[in-house]
Amino acid sequence: MPSTTTIVLAGGSGTRFWPLSRADHPKQLLALARPDETLLASTVRRVRDVTDRVLVVTSARLAEATRAALPDLDPASVLAEPVGRNTAPCIGWAATRVAREDPDGVCVVLPADHHIGDEAGYRAVLARAIAAAQDGGIVTVGIRPSRPETGYGYIEMGEARADGVFDARRFVEKPNRARAEQLLAAGSYLWNSGMFFFRASVMLEAIAKHLPGLSDALAAIAASPLAEEPARLAALYPSMPSISIDHGVMEKVDDVRVVPGDFGWSDLGGFASAWELADKDAEGNAAPDGAVLVDSARSLVRAPRGKLVALVGVEDLVVIDTPDALVVVPRERAQEVKRVVEALKARGDERL
Amino acid sequence: MPSTTTIVLAGGSGTRFWPLSRADHPKQLLALARPDETLLASTVRRVRDVTDRVLVVTSARLAEATRAALPDLDPASVLAEPVGRNTAPCIGWAATRVAREDPDGVCVVLPADHHIGDEAGYRAVLARAIAAAQDGGIVTVGIRPSRPETGYGYIEMGEARADGVFDARRFVEKPNRARAEQLLAAGSYLWNSGMFFFRASVMLEAIAKHLPGLSDALAAIAASPLAEEPARLAALYPSMPSISIDHGVMEKVDDVRVVPGDFGWSDLGGFASAWELADKDAEGNAAPDGAVLVDSARSLVRAPRGKLVALVGVEDLVVIDTPDALVVVPRERAQEVKRVVEALKARGDERL
Repeated sequence: MPSTTTIVLAGGSGTRFWPLSRADHPKQLLALARPDETLLASTVRRVRDVTDRVLVVTSARLAEATRAALPDLDPASVLAEPVGRNTAPCIGWAATRVAREDPDGVCVVLPADHHIGDEAGYRAVLARAIAAAQDGGIVTVGIRPSRPETGYGYIEMGEARADGVFDARRFVEKPNRARAEQLLAAGSYLWNSGMFFFRASVMLEAIAKHLPGLSDALAAIAASPLAEEPARLAALYPSMPSISIDHGVMEKVDDVRVVPGDFGWSDLGGFASAWELADKDAEGNAAPDGAVLVDSARSLVRAPRGKLVALVGVEDLVVIDTPDALVVVPRERAQEVKRVVEALKARGDERL
Repeated sequence: MPSTTTIVLAGGSGTRFWPLSRADHPKQLLALARPDETLLASTVRRVRDVTDRVLVVTSARLAEATRAALPDLDPASVLAEPVGRNTAPCIGWAATRVAREDPDGVCVVLPADHHIGDEAGYRAVLARAIAAAQDGGIVTVGIRPSRPETGYGYIEMGEARADGVFDARRFVEKPNRARAEQLLAAGSYLWNSGMFFFRASVMLEAIAKHLPGLSDALAAIAASPLAEEPARLAALYPSMPSISIDHGVMEKVDDVRVVPGDFGWSDLGGFASAWELADKDAEGNAAPDGAVLVDSARSLVRAPRGKLVALVGVEDLVVIDTPDALVVVPRERAQEVKRVVEALKARGDERL
């Protein structure tokens, strides 16, 4: 059996959860789905019995906070990118790390900031995808769609290759509403979950074929002793192409498989998703203990411990309070908190 | 010329401005209309050149904060009621204080927590009412109504007695909407502003006639040396009748005059009034400097200095943040913050 390594992509700096998330405290470091566990810690915990080891890739500025959020993980397993270059260089670098010890080792690439409702079902799908990746090729997991979502990319399923494993016929960009309804009705399209499974050697060969510049840089890093890696990284990373694994590799390789899954997945794309997942009272409010909710419904409230929040006569509202910043936005427009972040960026406000 | 004394009624503990106002920090101690002046300080400042001196009557628990809010006032001029007994005992006690030095001294009774837009016009009306009170009887100021307000009592004007001075034919309780529209259309009804003007002796005689129990207690207080007043007050105040000057005296005496006024008066009855008076941007938002307002309109925001508040896509909302409590309520329902105060009272929360 080849070794298995989970590679957690934890470099995100999402702006949709501001002011809970900040540039130095992004979404994956928030306890958004469970009261006392960050999304990152949940991600690592879920694969504890699925793969042999875990690598977490993040940015240099988040490395310390990321290690602190994973006290049970060897600090050396948190890899810090000197600069952000999207997912292809990041996954490529992590693959070279796996290949140093086991070129045919299977890599399981997972976003750090998703929520999984059915963890047993999830682990079963991971096991199936890992087995498929051992046979070669690149495998992804597609989520069975439950609504005509326009916020995700889709994957078209082709012929069955094994039990629960299909050819991935093509990747579809985020559709408009009408197209999303067609994709949902067709029954053969899955949401792209951003999870990838492959032997390290398979990914490095695909990068060599489709992203030769990146491949050269990765080869130079892989050829140097591990002790010299930080210096090599600092020299080479800034000139790597900034491209996603989807565009740079997945859409170009022929041999892609997809494993459909249905395990209560959510990408937690904003406060509306957080409200969906949260425990709610009879009126549909998700609010801290002690909040005073008068004639109010279907609202999400977050506040620092000890802060009293009172809502009177409001519905479908998101109220997020922190010690130095407060945002109020209708739940259906909660994505637009990123407009606040843009405004803060424009004026150089430190509460980003 | 008799002496003139302004008696400011500053015992209020309004709940409509929670969480800005608290039991120990009520409305009159807030800077609701001007950025750097409490309503109480504005009230005292406005009469500086109108009357000879100022007495402020408040509750014992608020005495220290009241004196602190009026650093230019002799601390002895802040009178502290041992317990609250509505306005008749309070005004009666203050009248005995005036009568000790000048039984025919004119008293000007003013609520501490109203806003005056046109201060010159206001002072002219006060001067007219003071002159009328010098002739005897009790004088009040009625505000020319601008809308069919159901939140105020009304005063019906009778015959003219002097230039701008009319008989007050009767007092009308807060009307329902239909009745308020009739009163507005009639043209002869004014809003009861809660301002009263009288010689001390006139009020004390009226109390003797209509509230004999109160009169006896006040006489006992007045008969004791000033140094013994606190002990007398503590003994007598709790047994005084708890009754308003309107019900206890004004509605019973025959000889009442009213001076109509139109000077941008507001009783600042809640956050909706505060929004009306506040400086607003082009979208009608009244918010602290630095607030980020995205696609939002006609909202009132208050927050501690340095706290960043962001609104996205909200309209006609009141957002009041303080270090330990936050309330969000539609502007049209802002009166209902008192329901939050009731809930806190019911559970013994200290953030009242």
